[in-house]
Amino acid sequence: MPRTPTGESVLARAVRVLAAFTADEPTLTVGEVARRSGLHVATASRLVAELVAHGLLERGPDRRVRVGVRLWELAARASPTVSLRDAAMPFLEDVHAVVGHHVQLGVLDGEDVLFLERLSARDAVVNFSRIAGRLALPTSSSGLVLLAHAPLDLQERVLARPLHPVSPAGFGSAAQLRTALAEVRRTQAAVLAGHQHPDATGVAVPVRDGRGEVVAALSVIVPNDGRGATLVPLLSATARGISRALRTPAA
Amino acid sequence: MPRTPTGESVLARAVRVLAAFTADEPTLTVGEVARRSGLHVATASRLVAELVAHGLLERGPDRRVRVGVRLWELAARASPTVSLRDAAMPFLEDVHAVVGHHVQLGVLDGEDVLFLERLSARDAVVNFSRIAGRLALPTSSSGLVLLAHAPLDLQERVLARPLHPVSPAGFGSAAQLRTALAEVRRTQAAVLAGHQHPDATGVAVPVRDGRGEVVAALSVIVPNDGRGATLVPLLSATARGISRALRTPAA
Repeated sequence: MPRTPTGESVLARAVRVLAAFTADEPTLTVGEVARRSGLHVATASRLVAELVAHGLLERGPDRRVRVGVRLWELAARASPTVSLRDAAMPFLEDVHAVVGHHVQLGVLDGEDVLFLERLSARDAVVNFSRIAGRLALPTSSSGLVLLAHAPLDLQERVLARPLHPVSPAGFGSAAQLRTALAEVRRTQAAVLAGHQHPDATGVAVPVRDGRGEVVAALSVIVPNDGRGATLVPLLSATARGISRALRTPAA
Repeated sequence: MPRTPTGESVLARAVRVLAAFTADEPTLTVGEVARRSGLHVATASRLVAELVAHGLLERGPDRRVRVGVRLWELAARASPTVSLRDAAMPFLEDVHAVVGHHVQLGVLDGEDVLFLERLSARDAVVNFSRIAGRLALPTSSSGLVLLAHAPLDLQERVLARPLHPVSPAGFGSAAQLRTALAEVRRTQAAVLAGHQHPDATGVAVPVRDGRGEVVAALSVIVPNDGRGATLVPLLSATARGISRALRTPAA
């Protein structure tokens, strides 16, 4: 690959440019792109121009830049998660129709839960997840389910590091987290009241593929009223339906 | 930008590699990537390796390559269509709960309709659209709605070219298409029976933003039983709901 004078490849720099755009700040000036990606303005400007030429970025009438529809299309049409998401979607809709609030599907990616899908109601309780957003594994019910079924070396890595609970109810010690993970494996569900926000409870269950491997977490975020655990049977039955759909793809 | 000996930039080649993956063939060998992207195998191999290193592609246990979760994340989290999709989603769910079959949201991109979202039932009628998939404007109800409200130069470009109907019921002449576009503008709906497949009817209406501009098409694909037009009032009312949600984003 051709490399720039500093030795970093063009692709590496292009990835840094794309990573500068987030859900909170989806449009940026070229100067902001340069600052966030740690590139000289001239370099960022050239890269942005080429990414725009290929449709991977788009320039608005105000000269601000954003992710292009073409990038979304390339990523979404052959996404590795599309079959999981497609299989799960009718079931997510059913849960959403019955429970309201937020229904989510998340997968393990690195040391985070990455949310593939989220259905929300307009008057739903506070929730910090988003589609294509991430949360740290020990802070969310989905993350706890995925961590409890993750390879042991990943579990030990997470347990060995300082925990950073995001609310007073969150796990502050490895011992607490270890107990919770064992409980998730025993009950096949995680119910976390107030771990992300004092007003919300997360309830998550594992989704297994045809070989019995946990491939996702199905979760709901509901008000923190002490009744979260009553939703576990509904979620568990729904997760079985998703597993069945994964084994027998629709025509 | 550093350029290869043939004058094409690394980014241009990387885009050709990414474009080789489709919904029908989401996993490819390096040889297949080379063939589809028109690159030498050695060049394709180097590019694939670097894209894998950045997580934009992933290599499976069988050495086949596919789009990486990281690419999906970069594209989806700051997608320009995320606010439209988020505003529309609760309304799509409502229509889907009532009508079943397929409910879709599509936008104009170039000279195609690009589908942002599709909710389907397992026993639904045949349908060729997909999420992040495209259909030619004159062949689908969504496309017809978008074309009817597109800039005049785009309409004339499409009308000036040979039409390629995909079923016997499709528009074969510019005169037919011109009449249909006028009818869509008059009725604010497109009902196309059997244009994509003899067994299916597409029914689409425009979705407008706060300034009254058409920004999307809301559509359903239902059996071709002559009753498609009865769904227009439901779709029109739903499109108004989406427009209202676009004007007043949720907190």
